[in-house]
Amino acid sequence: MGIVVPLGEAREPSEQLKLLLEIVGDEMGAVNRIILDKAISDVEMIPELAHHLIDSGGKRLRPMLTIAAAKLFGYAGDAHIRLAAAVEFMHTATLLHDDVVDDSDFRRGKKAARKIWGNQASVLVGDFLLGQAFRMMVDVGSLPCLKILSNAAAVIAEGEVMQLAAAKNTSTTEDAYLAIIEAKTAALFSAATEVGAAIAMRPAEEQAALKSYGKTLGIAFQLVDDALDYAGDAGRLGKSVGDDFREGKITLPVILAFRRGSDDERAFWKRTIVDGDIREGDLEHAVQLMRRHKAIEATLERARTYGSIARDAIGIFRDSKAKQALLDVVDFSVSRAH
Amino acid sequence: MGIVVPLGEAREPSEQLKLLLEIVGDEMGAVNRIILDKAISDVEMIPELAHHLIDSGGKRLRPMLTIAAAKLFGYAGDAHIRLAAAVEFMHTATLLHDDVVDDSDFRRGKKAARKIWGNQASVLVGDFLLGQAFRMMVDVGSLPCLKILSNAAAVIAEGEVMQLAAAKNTSTTEDAYLAIIEAKTAALFSAATEVGAAIAMRPAEEQAALKSYGKTLGIAFQLVDDALDYAGDAGRLGKSVGDDFREGKITLPVILAFRRGSDDERAFWKRTIVDGDIREGDLEHAVQLMRRHKAIEATLERARTYGSIARDAIGIFRDSKAKQALLDVVDFSVSRAH
Repeated sequence: MGIVVPLGEAREPSEQLKLLLEIVGDEMGAVNRIILDKAISDVEMIPELAHHLIDSGGKRLRPMLTIAAAKLFGYAGDAHIRLAAAVEFMHTATLLHDDVVDDSDFRRGKKAARKIWGNQASVLVGDFLLGQAFRMMVDVGSLPCLKILSNAAAVIAEGEVMQLAAAKNTSTTEDAYLAIIEAKTAALFSAATEVGAAIAMRPAEEQAALKSYGKTLGIAFQLVDDALDYAGDAGRLGKSVGDDFREGKITLPVILAFRRGSDDERAFWKRTIVDGDIREGDLEHAVQLMRRHKAIEATLERARTYGSIARDAIGIFRDSKAKQALLDVVDFSVSRAH
Repeated sequence: MGIVVPLGEAREPSEQLKLLLEIVGDEMGAVNRIILDKAISDVEMIPELAHHLIDSGGKRLRPMLTIAAAKLFGYAGDAHIRLAAAVEFMHTATLLHDDVVDDSDFRRGKKAARKIWGNQASVLVGDFLLGQAFRMMVDVGSLPCLKILSNAAAVIAEGEVMQLAAAKNTSTTEDAYLAIIEAKTAALFSAATEVGAAIAMRPAEEQAALKSYGKTLGIAFQLVDDALDYAGDAGRLGKSVGDDFREGKITLPVILAFRRGSDDERAFWKRTIVDGDIREGDLEHAVQLMRRHKAIEATLERARTYGSIARDAIGIFRDSKAKQALLDVVDFSVSRAH
């Protein structure tokens, strides 16, 4: 089922993240301890549900970015650890609410929390984790960091609502799609890297560089994610191909195939995505249409463009292990489609 | 259907809140403008849904408490206005999520937002309003206030999960019930009044007094709410009698009637509340059982006790219009059952 899209990259993903993992390793140990500690509650259901998601082996890419950004500036304190944990909690809260909104059955190859504890508990434990995230940030006490992260929280929710409004709507333009992923995904990547610079109290110009790096990396990351949903290798990624198709989600591969397609093809997209009338063989046909119109290649091409903007954003900094690690994350993110 | 429980109070609710409305009037105008302003978003669905709830005429009791608490200390700045708006947004976000969790069809006598825009939008717009609340608090820039309000956000969610875990469980004790309402309701009342003292930078002892006042007032308020759900006058309150019964919610009137009842009666509660097998006449029978065991009177009696603790909490302050207004809120809250 997996379609390998050659990207001219040779290194393995694990190889690409090796330097990042090396430089953030110690701090991530501390981040993980805080995450476990703050998922504790006397209310039994909270740690049970939270652990289900926390233990399911997310990459923890966002908190690693916060740590790496702080290290880029030689930050010597320990506040970045709590900020990184807060970023991961914001992400986890979003996943819990997303699964409810999307009616998802699986998350990271495991049953979605809502399938075990119900939608109600998923909504409320998401709220709890968001509350804990704010507690941790307030604990750090940096108003600039609080501003960055609270802005992100509102923008992410705004992006999710935009996505909901665009659902099953094939008239969604590429432009509107970009606005959605900028809000729902890139805002947290951007906040994650920007707080790394903010906690190190770097000048506005350098904070802006990290903000732009995170934002464009986030857009690239989401574009690749959306491509993988039609072209990925299910076994290796722990996510199933076709989830977005079955949920009627409008992503760039669909937008491009729809706009580049014939009237007949557009009727196919309307039947499947808009009406949700999905039959045997439809997913395979959708992938074929995308190949015909090079929709997946074009999506990945755009991801590479954003990746290159992300690289340039941190071009102003002198070479260091941290900088190389941040550049490697871009390579990893755009070449996951391998 | 309404059962009038005499409380020895003669004044009308509107009369009781007159002084409060008078002293917070100007500021509440400003609070309301901020609320409308911060519910704005380019994403159309957000202001539509938010306004549906905002315009539906909640009392805005919590933000009024923040303003009144700040005025008790002669606070002369304007930060209390943004804090009050943030408090109301936290409350509104909770209502949106609550209605999803409780499968509620109505809120404040209008169709619940989730019945018009769906559960998904209600979850996400709730997240957006919570994000906006944090933005407003961060904007104020007081770390003590941020600490108080972010703590409240996590505790409220914890209380909601506790309530979910206790749902339909007739073995819930009065003690466990109190812990739930302390978290889900009293935590926000408490934070609302405590930030009024914190923004005025009052000494710890005075902040503690306002915290205790808000907490015990909140408990009293929720106890009366739970009593009204079996004894209220639907027309006047804009809420329907029997909502909690139909949703299988375990509240103090049920706990007391269950524990004070016969085996037969307990079987009735199990059939209706636990199994959700509710037949014609069951609500009336439930109210009869509560009357037989004086469950509603006992609930209101406890509310009066907490109300009296709230009054004593602010006994240390010298007489003023603001103090009298805060005392009047207690009277109003415990005598709503009229």
